[in-house]
Amino acid sequence: MERVEIAIIGTGPAGISAALTSVNRNKKILLLGSRQLSEKVAKAHEIRNYPGLPAVSGAAMAEAFRRHLDQMGIEITEKRVGAVYAMGDYFALQVGEEMLEAEAVILAGGVVQGKPLPGEEELLGRGVSYCATCDAPLYRGKDVIVVGYSPREEAEAAFLSEVCRSVLYFPMYQEETDLPESVRVIREKVTALSREAGRLQVTSDSGVYSADGVFVLREAVSPGQLVPGLETEGAHVRVNRKMETNLPGVFACGDITGTPYQYVKAAGEGNVAAISAAGYLEQKKRGGQNHG
Amino acid sequence: MERVEIAIIGTGPAGISAALTSVNRNKKILLLGSRQLSEKVAKAHEIRNYPGLPAVSGAAMAEAFRRHLDQMGIEITEKRVGAVYAMGDYFALQVGEEMLEAEAVILAGGVVQGKPLPGEEELLGRGVSYCATCDAPLYRGKDVIVVGYSPREEAEAAFLSEVCRSVLYFPMYQEETDLPESVRVIREKVTALSREAGRLQVTSDSGVYSADGVFVLREAVSPGQLVPGLETEGAHVRVNRKMETNLPGVFACGDITGTPYQYVKAAGEGNVAAISAAGYLEQKKRGGQNHG
Repeated sequence: MERVEIAIIGTGPAGISAALTSVNRNKKILLLGSRQLSEKVAKAHEIRNYPGLPAVSGAAMAEAFRRHLDQMGIEITEKRVGAVYAMGDYFALQVGEEMLEAEAVILAGGVVQGKPLPGEEELLGRGVSYCATCDAPLYRGKDVIVVGYSPREEAEAAFLSEVCRSVLYFPMYQEETDLPESVRVIREKVTALSREAGRLQVTSDSGVYSADGVFVLREAVSPGQLVPGLETEGAHVRVNRKMETNLPGVFACGDITGTPYQYVKAAGEGNVAAISAAGYLEQKKRGGQNHG
Repeated sequence: MERVEIAIIGTGPAGISAALTSVNRNKKILLLGSRQLSEKVAKAHEIRNYPGLPAVSGAAMAEAFRRHLDQMGIEITEKRVGAVYAMGDYFALQVGEEMLEAEAVILAGGVVQGKPLPGEEELLGRGVSYCATCDAPLYRGKDVIVVGYSPREEAEAAFLSEVCRSVLYFPMYQEETDLPESVRVIREKVTALSREAGRLQVTSDSGVYSADGVFVLREAVSPGQLVPGLETEGAHVRVNRKMETNLPGVFACGDITGTPYQYVKAAGEGNVAAISAAGYLEQKKRGGQNHG
């Protein structure tokens, strides 16, 4: 895949806005996320303060956004980015075993809702993974547990069931699951992760389960984990008014930059991030060094 | 008029967004501007990057905004604010000879386009005025010149013609004028203002005209002139990511805070300003002192 100018990670209002403005600026982009756009938007009951779309349902807003993307000829690449690495002149985006390349990156992946599970951070990379596509090969023929925070994670669990010996799936949401028979669904609330004699243990409110690996799948990964070296403030990326992060060429917008978690705030920031990214690229092309 | 919680000055995307979110937060507001909303929006040919309104004309966007305001029961007060004074516990907004009161103020008046005329700043308050409603009484029975930057200023010139002995009107735009016969329209480009033997002089590209006073009427007044003590950076108000200015209780959003001059950026900032203003009011009510 050829190197794009701007990779935009996230398809909520911030990512969509960034994509529209980037394309308006004639930038070649890659918009990574979900064709369902954002779980948070789709589930919103009614949004009353997005100017121009009075009393709009989340579903209708998502539909308006989709129509806008279609009209501009913008496609969504349905891939989950595991990590973003600064390579000097460009960025490498790890997507499963594939590496994508971009000259600038806009982080618009939303905010990680809620705290990590007890034990989760300590065991990350030691049996706990955030990316089924990336780490499935490690668990070929083995037993895994998936803790899924939204119905969208079910596709990952189904994929794992093709590779692994057994898959237990803990849905951390209310909706009915729609999974192959080979996946065993356990409707218990996961409370902690631990490691015992080389096996991972998942403790729920009514039992303990063990496996070779545990996948914790949420809509968003914490930004510090996604981009090594990125300056964060708690769950948020530190940005200035131009939506610049501490890393030249990396911009952020939307909920990932902090409260208020509001649709039009996110869309406004996406616009600014895209204009700043376009300015960065133009400056780079001219050989400028001055990244304020 | 009773004191409102939040006065919002400006009816472009920033002011409208601030109004929608403030009302959503159950704040009692006063939205000051024009029922035509914003000259800049109305004249826009096509806006391609306001998410959810694909390839929208300025007129259609204004219509969508108006519908949204109507639906939320928000009215626009068509008054021009001449100055905002911090009174300790509240703010006084000078509107002609009237004073309005608000506990917090959101500045969303857009940016002054173009440079001041040579001589304009030096003569401000010494024969040059920005507000016909405010200063008309000073020129009762005298000769005035109006330099109008948009057709909206014609109403001010018409009003002056009821009070003053003579009114010359210089339209600094292409559109046909629609003025009472008592106003003499001069289609010449004004290039400078000066003062000569106690009379104001207006120099155009083809002549020199004199009068007792000169009104320079633009859509927006520079923010430092509007709010004494406000920290500015050139034509812009200095704000942080919460849209707070250096004055507690005064917030700003939209073009007035700086580039990029984009509709969705302005709308996003209006949302943030309203939430910050609501937070300020709630903190004030609790007796808090800590205005970050």
